[in-house]
Amino acid sequence: MDEFDSYRAEMNERLLAGNHRGIKRFFALDTQAYEGGALDKRTKELMGLVASIVLRCDDCVTYHIKQCSSEGVTRAQFLDAFNVALVVGGSITIPHLRRAIDRLDTLLEVEGQQPVLEHNHE
Amino acid sequence: MDEFDSYRAEMNERLLAGNHRGIKRFFALDTQAYEGGALDKRTKELMGLVASIVLRCDDCVTYHIKQCSSEGVTRAQFLDAFNVALVVGGSITIPHLRRAIDRLDTLLEVEGQQPVLEHNHE
Amino acid sequence: MDEFDSYRAEMNERLLAGNHRGIKRFFALDTQAYEGGALDKRTKELMGLVASIVLRCDDCVTYHIKQCSSEGVTRAQFLDAFNVALVVGGSITIPHLRRAIDRLDTLLEVEGQQPVLEHNHE
Amino acid sequence: MDEFDSYRAEMNERLLAGNHRGIKRFFALDTQAYEGGALDKRTKELMGLVASIVLRCDDCVTYHIKQCSSEGVTRAQFLDAFNVALVVGGSITIPHLRRAIDRLDTLLEVEGQQPVLEHNHE
Amino acid sequence: MDEFDSYRAEMNERLLAGNHRGIKRFFALDTQAYEGGALDKRTKELMGLVASIVLRCDDCVTYHIKQCSSEGVTRAQFLDAFNVALVVGGSITIPHLRRAIDRLDTLLEVEGQQPVLEHNHE
Amino acid sequence: MDEFDSYRAEMNERLLAGNHRGIKRFFALDTQAYEGGALDKRTKELMGLVASIVLRCDDCVTYHIKQCSSEGVTRAQFLDAFNVALVVGGSITIPHLRRAIDRLDTLLEVEGQQPVLEHNHE
Repeated sequence: MDEFDSYRAEMNERLLAGNHRGIKRFFALDTQAYEGGALDKRTKELMGLVASIVLRCDDCVTYHIKQCSSEGVTRAQFLDAFNVALVVGGSITIPHLRRAIDRLDTLLEVEGQQPVLEHNHE
Repeated sequence: MDEFDSYRAEMNERLLAGNHRGIKRFFALDTQAYEGGALDKRTKELMGLVASIVLRCDDCVTYHIKQCSSEGVTRAQFLDAFNVALVVGGSITIPHLRRAIDRLDTLLEVEGQQPVLEHNHE
Repeated sequence: MDEFDSYRAEMNERLLAGNHRGIKRFFALDTQAYEGGALDKRTKELMGLVASIVLRCDDCVTYHIKQCSSEGVTRAQFLDAFNVALVVGGSITIPHLRRAIDRLDTLLEVEGQQPVLEHNHE
Repeated sequence: MDEFDSYRAEMNERLLAGNHRGIKRFFALDTQAYEGGALDKRTKELMGLVASIVLRCDDCVTYHIKQCSSEGVTRAQFLDAFNVALVVGGSITIPHLRRAIDRLDTLLEVEGQQPVLEHNHE
Repeated sequence: MDEFDSYRAEMNERLLAGNHRGIKRFFALDTQAYEGGALDKRTKELMGLVASIVLRCDDCVTYHIKQCSSEGVTRAQFLDAFNVALVVGGSITIPHLRRAIDRLDTLLEVEGQQPVLEHNHE
Repeated sequence: MDEFDSYRAEMNERLLAGNHRGIKRFFALDTQAYEGGALDKRTKELMGLVASIVLRCDDCVTYHIKQCSSEGVTRAQFLDAFNVALVVGGSITIPHLRRAIDRLDTLLEVEGQQPVLEHNHE
């Protein structure tokens, strides 16, 4: 995850350092889109997560998992969001969900949360 | 909108009447995915709406607009959701957003809400 | 369906009449791809149908439904193919499946086949 | 085409009238992206056209055909662009190319250009 | 390939261990979709392969190559399926086809089949 | 980049060595599509680059970056093309743009060009 973060930061910087006005403005819009407004930040991050899964972008999924986690989204809520994405996007999203659960549990472990599986038997 | 609803109902029925077990179960899963659970129904419908916009499916957008509206999502919140979808999915979603705002306002008008544009000047 | 066929034929002709070598060759490749070879034509048309559904192209779906029907694919087999596409591609394909079953039944009716729903109760 | 233009204008206005800052800024970015810069406007419109075809958005294709035509792109050049899009995006783009050539020729006819097919036999 | 299998198994287990009813049912549906019914398993796996290529999911392609191979699909038939996917999905699928042929030949080699290239010169 | 090139060459060869007529012809069409015609090669490579970004195919992006660079496309022009792709395709393309700028600068460095960032402050 650290490697992901530093590569991401370095390359974003390089994209922005070119001083292309359009790219810089797009990055600003991207940041602002998830700030609280008529809808709160947590809802927006969850929407960003589901959009990233159905569009099947691993890096975007990783990013929104981190943001959602900061907003207090629980493991059970992540699974609920994964399920909506799975139904909308189909089995083609499953490889991305495998990588998503892997990263989510890595993140929860780092944060000292119990990454362990919930056994709330049906 | 009524025409959309009746065509939708008739063809869903025809797809299900074939008694294909897989198709019937998928439709059941699809319904259950948006029921309240770890995340509430309103959040799930908003996630379904954004997923539908970035995947650019007009009928799915129409369906989730209606569901979100039933869950009390306001026009300003719809615009906020549209904005997240627009940033994630790019300008290619704009024609779908044009049709979305058209249907949203038709729906609000039918429901006697003021479909009028908000003039909360920045 | 007739309208679809004549528009399709007229515009294909116009695309080809420009005598663009690449476009003409692509159209030839497209035709050849479904001819019997290591795999038979029927299997290839079924693959084309499923690919068209998951990529969500109504006109392509209509075209492959007709081709599959000519190759003797039955209504029950169509539903089985629709189900694979639905699971792979997710609920976002459902509006396309609604239009697909509509066209399939129109086609079966025209051909004097019983378009009626099968009641092979589980 | 006129109907397309007026619907487009009316709904864009309604999307923007909500005064959602993000949506307004995105629309501004979208306009600026095609202005001449390191690359000229004509090249950018051609890139927008090909992107619209491979992403299979009819309204976007119509829009960029008009813009490209204003920039002096000829019918033979349009076919060359269509061919790149066809090779990159595959046969799934063909229904969109049929509608594209239809609109292109309508546009050329309106503009008094000869919409007729070129017979530069290979 | 072994590494792929074990990661796949471990993460599927973790996705399912959360006991999310929807995710579990979707996984069951996914398995059932490829079982023989109105269409036989081999045809369905071939449809799953082509769908995976046009949707450009490497892990899904690897999975369906293995399933197809178990169903007796020959190398020449795989190439025929690749060709349908290539024509439908365009050149954007080529990087996936490169990885597909790599994995297919690895699989054939492991199984003691001649992974060698067929020289059935046209 | 060398590793990319050799893997690409080896696997293309293997795909073609199967002597599947359709695959061979598609590869020929793919090459011809970018040759100068009504539009020049440079414009076509730029269109191929933007199409590859919005369809989010890293290998295709790498390939077209090399081709564009051979055609004399400058770093500022690449950023302009990236921006069009970013606006059309949305933030979901950003991870691909990060990898694109990384490869572009590697390529420019190898070629002895100054890979350094342009500081043409707005």
